[in-house]
Amino acid sequence: MLEMIIFIVGIAIFSGSSFMFLILKNRNQRMATINTIVSFVTVASYMLMFDGSGTLMVPSGELVYWTRWIFYAGSCSLLMLEISTLMGKDKWMTVEIIASNIIVMLTGALASITEAASKWMFFVFSSIAFGYILYRLREGKTDKFLVTFTTIFWSMFPVAWILSPAGFGILNAAWTALGYLVLDVITKIYFGYHTTMHYQVE
Amino acid sequence: MLEMIIFIVGIAIFSGSSFMFLILKNRNQRMATINTIVSFVTVASYMLMFDGSGTLMVPSGELVYWTRWIFYAGSCSLLMLEISTLMGKDKWMTVEIIASNIIVMLTGALASITEAASKWMFFVFSSIAFGYILYRLREGKTDKFLVTFTTIFWSMFPVAWILSPAGFGILNAAWTALGYLVLDVITKIYFGYHTTMHYQVE
Amino acid sequence: MLEMIIFIVGIAIFSGSSFMFLILKNRNQRMATINTIVSFVTVASYMLMFDGSGTLMVPSGELVYWTRWIFYAGSCSLLMLEISTLMGKDKWMTVEIIASNIIVMLTGALASITEAASKWMFFVFSSIAFGYILYRLREGKTDKFLVTFTTIFWSMFPVAWILSPAGFGILNAAWTALGYLVLDVITKIYFGYHTTMHYQVE
Repeated sequence: MLEMIIFIVGIAIFSGSSFMFLILKNRNQRMATINTIVSFVTVASYMLMFDGSGTLMVPSGELVYWTRWIFYAGSCSLLMLEISTLMGKDKWMTVEIIASNIIVMLTGALASITEAASKWMFFVFSSIAFGYILYRLREGKTDKFLVTFTTIFWSMFPVAWILSPAGFGILNAAWTALGYLVLDVITKIYFGYHTTMHYQVE
Repeated sequence: MLEMIIFIVGIAIFSGSSFMFLILKNRNQRMATINTIVSFVTVASYMLMFDGSGTLMVPSGELVYWTRWIFYAGSCSLLMLEISTLMGKDKWMTVEIIASNIIVMLTGALASITEAASKWMFFVFSSIAFGYILYRLREGKTDKFLVTFTTIFWSMFPVAWILSPAGFGILNAAWTALGYLVLDVITKIYFGYHTTMHYQVE
Repeated sequence: MLEMIIFIVGIAIFSGSSFMFLILKNRNQRMATINTIVSFVTVASYMLMFDGSGTLMVPSGELVYWTRWIFYAGSCSLLMLEISTLMGKDKWMTVEIIASNIIVMLTGALASITEAASKWMFFVFSSIAFGYILYRLREGKTDKFLVTFTTIFWSMFPVAWILSPAGFGILNAAWTALGYLVLDVITKIYFGYHTTMHYQVE
């Protein structure tokens, strides 16, 4: 299965970025710390996909790697903590945003493993929760780059999902894996590098 | 299966209450926020029960919808955060109460999926943790309405459980679903509405 | 199966220690509170192992009780909160240490249920995260006893794992259960008693 190679590449890239963010702690203690953990969790996620344990076969014969969304519940909650902190959101809104993110990811996992009506019910539900996060990020204390970046690139995940074997199955498992890998690199490594170099929180 | 209708009603009611609490944010930012998320998590819980994926058939032929308790670990932890905050409990006691609540719900899920001696061992254990929460809520800074309400209505969940197919099976799955729905409406919508309208935290 | 007796002993010991720490609250509110919850979670963990639901049979015919690591993600995160608090680590480092601990335990669970290359990949990954925690505990504000204790006794868990049916299978399930029980008593009861009696946080 071709996606195995992509998962190995993912393990290699995020192992490297874990190490990179660890070194960048000298420059920006807090942002680099969060980004190290985000990369590290992503390595574990790719390891499990490589192992192939948590998968589901759909009628087309393609595999759905639904565990990805469980790991995102962890890693993307940390990114949301990062984004909230950088925007200076208060403690209550941060809790709200992180709780919403966990809902997005876990109902995303449920959409991936259920079928027919249930699948799309969970997908719509997950999308509403995601839309709500984007709405909240725009309110009050905010930051143009962070909002724009999150809106554009995080929104590509549900698009990839719709095209993937978990959705309409237009892309096969290998292309799906490649698409998510590119998005992971953009939203976790490029984004993390940018925040580590250009933002400071005390 | 009759309980499907009840689950659809649950999805409708809690979708409505999610929306209601969202609007009530104008009146009471923090309480309405928590109650929005609580209702939203409850929608997801009813969606999964409607899908019927996470169920277990007991010898009587009835289904046990044990995933309910996993979602309660999330939604009721938020209610505990709400109650703790309203009572002015300190950070440490809040952590203790939320951790105890997670134990109550996860061992409740384990009691639902295990059998014989194990089932009742987990049930007793879960009940002890629940009793401990009620005891802690009464100590120090407290609030008569919140304590009385929690003691009476939250205690009806283990009573419903004992009567349900997960317990002695006196009620079938449909009546159980109806019982829990009524309790969910009381403890999540009525309670949330009351706290949103009558309490303020700054 | 001989390990059943060990699990019953575990339930008894940690029920006793839950009660002991509850009483010690008079002396040291915060440390005793955390240690009560840690013991209580450990009782639930032994109950599930006694029930035998979450197990995996390896080719040698021995059972791997992998759920242990899921419970450690909870109980040991609370111990890490305790250790971080006692050392006076700041909020950010505490989050980092707890997140790393969750990664250690969940990848430890994955190492227990996967095979061959995957198993050792997860084991190495989990060990790196654990090594990173030990490194962070030594930095900045620290405490000689806490660091030495954690380094020595927590490191014996991966050693036991290597020897267990989940690893090379040198020990059978009963000896493994006994080894972990001794380590649990040392790291959760002895350690908790020591911190409760000798440390104060305000």
